[in-house]
Amino acid sequence: MAPLYIPTFGDVLAAHERIAPHIHRTPVLTSSYLNALTGAELFFKCENFQKAGAFKARGASNAVFGLTEAQAARGVATHSSGNHGLSLSYAAGRRGIPCTVVMPRTAPQAKKDAVQGYGGRVVECEPSTTSREAVFAEVLKETGAEFVHPYNDPRVIAGQATCSRELLEQVGELDAVVAPIGGGGMISGTCLTLSTLAPGVEIYAAEPRNADDAARSFRAGHIIADDAPETVADGLKVPLKELTWHFVKNYVEDILTAEEDEIVEAMKLTWKRMKIVIEPSCAVPLATILKNRDRFAGKRVGVVITGGNVDLDKLPWM
Amino acid sequence: MAPLYIPTFGDVLAAHERIAPHIHRTPVLTSSYLNALTGAELFFKCENFQKAGAFKARGASNAVFGLTEAQAARGVATHSSGNHGLSLSYAAGRRGIPCTVVMPRTAPQAKKDAVQGYGGRVVECEPSTTSREAVFAEVLKETGAEFVHPYNDPRVIAGQATCSRELLEQVGELDAVVAPIGGGGMISGTCLTLSTLAPGVEIYAAEPRNADDAARSFRAGHIIADDAPETVADGLKVPLKELTWHFVKNYVEDILTAEEDEIVEAMKLTWKRMKIVIEPSCAVPLATILKNRDRFAGKRVGVVITGGNVDLDKLPWM
Repeated sequence: MAPLYIPTFGDVLAAHERIAPHIHRTPVLTSSYLNALTGAELFFKCENFQKAGAFKARGASNAVFGLTEAQAARGVATHSSGNHGLSLSYAAGRRGIPCTVVMPRTAPQAKKDAVQGYGGRVVECEPSTTSREAVFAEVLKETGAEFVHPYNDPRVIAGQATCSRELLEQVGELDAVVAPIGGGGMISGTCLTLSTLAPGVEIYAAEPRNADDAARSFRAGHIIADDAPETVADGLKVPLKELTWHFVKNYVEDILTAEEDEIVEAMKLTWKRMKIVIEPSCAVPLATILKNRDRFAGKRVGVVITGGNVDLDKLPWM
Repeated sequence: MAPLYIPTFGDVLAAHERIAPHIHRTPVLTSSYLNALTGAELFFKCENFQKAGAFKARGASNAVFGLTEAQAARGVATHSSGNHGLSLSYAAGRRGIPCTVVMPRTAPQAKKDAVQGYGGRVVECEPSTTSREAVFAEVLKETGAEFVHPYNDPRVIAGQATCSRELLEQVGELDAVVAPIGGGGMISGTCLTLSTLAPGVEIYAAEPRNADDAARSFRAGHIIADDAPETVADGLKVPLKELTWHFVKNYVEDILTAEEDEIVEAMKLTWKRMKIVIEPSCAVPLATILKNRDRFAGKRVGVVITGGNVDLDKLPWM
């Protein structure tokens, strides 16, 4: 697979058909309270209800179910201590093929258990890039597995792109969509779909100010990667890569940022008012909408709730 | 209104038409994980997404929008420190009429604020039945308001009954329905609807063992009321009354109970796996299904998630 193959909307249609039996068509929820508070009409696409608890099941399923029989027999592998590892393990389990996830030995036991719960194998590395790369190379050599990158992979982006296709089908015309940005997989998929189906929709990326490498990249005109930023939105720490940068650069209207306390406040507000369990990462869009009222008031705005995998014993307001 | 008027399914149909503009047709969610765990096929009717955060908005709206103009002008009143007070305030606010809620002065400030947030007036009493009754009588005398009882009221029961009507429309045939029981308003509404539309469906009530007055009433054949039982499921402490006893006695298959730790475990499991915020009270059905596996395995079971109003700063596992 050529690393810089840019997926097309045809790839999105193929992905959607391929993954339909393995993912939920997640509901879109609304809140009259949050509409009144923001002055906008908000449509929350609830990927926290997705299989394995996050939108990542879309991209992972597309990659896994697109493999040839010969590739599939050797299995898949990735490095991730978050939702992508879990989702890849879920998808591989559905196809009945091996999946190896390289995780730092310091990752929470609950995350390792969750990967294994779907039948995946966890291989531990030291918590450093050097160790992770060495261990991961060893895994690939030993298994011949297909590497499925968490976001810098056209199969993954085409899979994530199915989310905004559903959103448009569910709610009709929109003025804007706001989604969180970490590595950029969800935003890239959103750009891919909307640039074809609804090119007038403004696409906003939402990022923690403490990990605002994408916002700085956007202003600088080239990728800036930070080394280990610290934010409560732990799904958004990773940097952009070539493929996601292509979409961000060409299709994103703006990247808005929120402070840590604003993110926690938006997360708690969503739990309290919408009665849904969402991760800190997917509270960033609402946090940015609340602080940029003039930009969104009076508009129909899609908001991607990316996932709901949180440690209930360690909530950020505890 | 005669206190022992027993509502009919005709009242349910009228209620549904009357309240439709003011309530959500809440979604039904499923969980393949919980299906595997219980061996049953569970359909969760998510009234935690209902207006004001609980099914009580149905009954309260039916009572409020069924008033004549003359009655409406004098407003409504109730005593409740829980979801009914909130819901009545919501419904009265929608109609633009006064609403008074008598609450113990010891009730959490957040609950008083919530009632006022919908435009209701809070009148405080001492935390005793004597004081509550005296203060409430004074409110009725002073305002001439219509008393809307939290559950022992045919208008309220007919309103709650719209919930299982939607459930049947949404999921088709069921073998059983499990709903929590406190005063019995939701169970009575469920009996009212199912005895007409689907009389073969077994109706189970689920109750905390620490507040099992309904289960003991059911076995004894007459109402037994406890004085101030203590349970984490704080919506289920109140006793049955004549009208709800009529439905429980005649239509309920059985009343199952769960221990406090089982309720908290089921609540946490629902948050973790289904990504929804539910109150302890509505975790009781799942807790009883988990401990009565043989009774539900292989069946299609509706489960009423009655509400999602919890204090996020005081979760029972904190």
